[in-house]
Amino acid sequence: MAHTSPATVGMPVEEIDTPCLVVDLDAFERNVDKLGRYMRDHGLRHRAHAKTHKSADIAKVQIERGGACGVCCQKVGEAEALVEAGLRDVLVSNQVVAPKKIARLAALATRARVLVCVDDLGNVDDLSAAAVEAGSTLECLVEIDVGAGRCGVAPGEAAVALARRIADRPGLAFAGLQAYQGRAQHVRDHGERRALIQTAIDETKRTVALLEAEGLPCAIVAGAGTGSFEMEGASGVYNELQCGSYVFMDADYQRVRDSGDRPISEFENSLFILTAVMSKAKPDIAICDAGLKAQSVDSGMPLVFGRSDVEYLKASDEHGVIADPGNVLRLNDRLRLIPGHCDPTVNVHDWLVGVRDGRVEALWPVTARGALL
Amino acid sequence: MAHTSPATVGMPVEEIDTPCLVVDLDAFERNVDKLGRYMRDHGLRHRAHAKTHKSADIAKVQIERGGACGVCCQKVGEAEALVEAGLRDVLVSNQVVAPKKIARLAALATRARVLVCVDDLGNVDDLSAAAVEAGSTLECLVEIDVGAGRCGVAPGEAAVALARRIADRPGLAFAGLQAYQGRAQHVRDHGERRALIQTAIDETKRTVALLEAEGLPCAIVAGAGTGSFEMEGASGVYNELQCGSYVFMDADYQRVRDSGDRPISEFENSLFILTAVMSKAKPDIAICDAGLKAQSVDSGMPLVFGRSDVEYLKASDEHGVIADPGNVLRLNDRLRLIPGHCDPTVNVHDWLVGVRDGRVEALWPVTARGALL
Repeated sequence: MAHTSPATVGMPVEEIDTPCLVVDLDAFERNVDKLGRYMRDHGLRHRAHAKTHKSADIAKVQIERGGACGVCCQKVGEAEALVEAGLRDVLVSNQVVAPKKIARLAALATRARVLVCVDDLGNVDDLSAAAVEAGSTLECLVEIDVGAGRCGVAPGEAAVALARRIADRPGLAFAGLQAYQGRAQHVRDHGERRALIQTAIDETKRTVALLEAEGLPCAIVAGAGTGSFEMEGASGVYNELQCGSYVFMDADYQRVRDSGDRPISEFENSLFILTAVMSKAKPDIAICDAGLKAQSVDSGMPLVFGRSDVEYLKASDEHGVIADPGNVLRLNDRLRLIPGHCDPTVNVHDWLVGVRDGRVEALWPVTARGALL
Repeated sequence: MAHTSPATVGMPVEEIDTPCLVVDLDAFERNVDKLGRYMRDHGLRHRAHAKTHKSADIAKVQIERGGACGVCCQKVGEAEALVEAGLRDVLVSNQVVAPKKIARLAALATRARVLVCVDDLGNVDDLSAAAVEAGSTLECLVEIDVGAGRCGVAPGEAAVALARRIADRPGLAFAGLQAYQGRAQHVRDHGERRALIQTAIDETKRTVALLEAEGLPCAIVAGAGTGSFEMEGASGVYNELQCGSYVFMDADYQRVRDSGDRPISEFENSLFILTAVMSKAKPDIAICDAGLKAQSVDSGMPLVFGRSDVEYLKASDEHGVIADPGNVLRLNDRLRLIPGHCDPTVNVHDWLVGVRDGRVEALWPVTARGALL
């Protein structure tokens, strides 16, 4: 089920087959460098979120060039694929509760440092039993809900109860807190975002202090994303930030503004869907070859990069309808689309084609594509 | 990059790993039988659209059990994967205009009957040159735009010019018309849908007559989908119908009603996303393990099958938020979700798990998953 790759290394960009994902390596490296510098300058660890790119190659750039301490991912299957590809420090920043998945996670911890989030007392017992059985240690972060309304227990006493249970159980190590305010990341307005994150910081600080007072110090206080990391970074509370989308950016993140009404930290779009015109039977529209199966439109339509004369209007399964009011597009013309939402868009592709100076420089498999289990 | 399968044949359904796609084989077979009977009773050919399921196994059931004459797909890569898996009659119901793709299509036509749609005169010349080079014959359908506003030339003279060019060129055979009204398929109201399809029928009939008068008879007059096939089927104009979604159905197609305000032809939901609760830290919501990477939400959120007490509210990358007002859900509880839109949902999965009588009976690879090129 692996498919023909859209490019080979050394090929001129004009010859890349479409539709596919291309990575502008210069912009990508500037994003990696920019965040790496920030983390170094502020004495923070960056645990890069690999759910964005699902690529072991990109994770290695984030670690070796950007100074990241390791990666996060969301599924045991992603963790397995990344460890298989050489990664050695992986947090599953999510709950793992199904018995088979717990057994796989415990086995994986014999091959790499593996951390996982918990928000349920019974789950702590299950993780402990599996780790003992596998002869491994699972480091556990207690997840608190700091406003995202998703996973995680309430900050405060519930977190202490979980931490104590973890510390008491064999095969487990209490490693700290997961306190990610996911809902705030895409809030456009800087002031509104700041208010949400301030609440998250306050709740996290209170919980860290409570744990400390109970003899359960947090080695890791984790969270933050591309939309908010400078806030958690300046808090004095968080010490391990989990930015992922910053490497690629997308149309939706470009709408999230900093205090000067600029895109956050001036990260650049480095990920594009390369598409070609495949029907031009009408003067005012063109049909391109990238539709719903080449991207996710959950956060809106993609933007056409570097063009104000044409616009991506709508997507059907295999087609995109491009408004072409000037009738300038021709068959086989190529466009670069900025995906509406990078993470689920990467997940429908098998390859990332790295380009620089008009040539294909890298061809990276999407290592953990489709790793749902 | 092939991942662990979520099930093995013979396994009780309770042991299937999540999230994954399950097919209720009884409902699936009833759908196949129902459409097969309709086609037989009306003297029509069914060319099953494989873009829905991308599965050679399902295509073979549609052909062997349902009487389909062959399959359609939308990409050369899909056609290659299906021919590789044993299919022998494949229409790429789409334009193929990139030189590399044309060469692959012409080569494929040495191994199977291959048909393709055209809406550009220059493309006819390119297809001809490639077929001559490969020593194959490409059967071409002229695509007319009968209201979908996507690919295809205007009905009438433009179609005649294309047909004549095809007939004149070596390596090609003029096979008829592609006249698919895609926009009408999901129109909820029966009367409104009927009006759109009637226009498509009228325009197609006129074009068929014009071609006939020019000595270019149409062996194939193709189109129709799950939302409208009984209208094209009764037209006396169309003779090859391309229904695809009927095998699975989805939440959106369930909202499309027939003249008696019932779901179209009473096809049943046979495709489900099996998901499990992975966080239950709050009384009124549960978090399940199927988010944006386990489905496409372009046509809305999935429905929870057979349950009125819980509701799938929203999706983030790897999570679904389930309203659980009665606090009835527990960790590892399973739900069956009816996808909002079946085609792009299947495209993010590697496997279809066929179930019957509480056991896994079939494990089908999604043969052409991700075949974008």
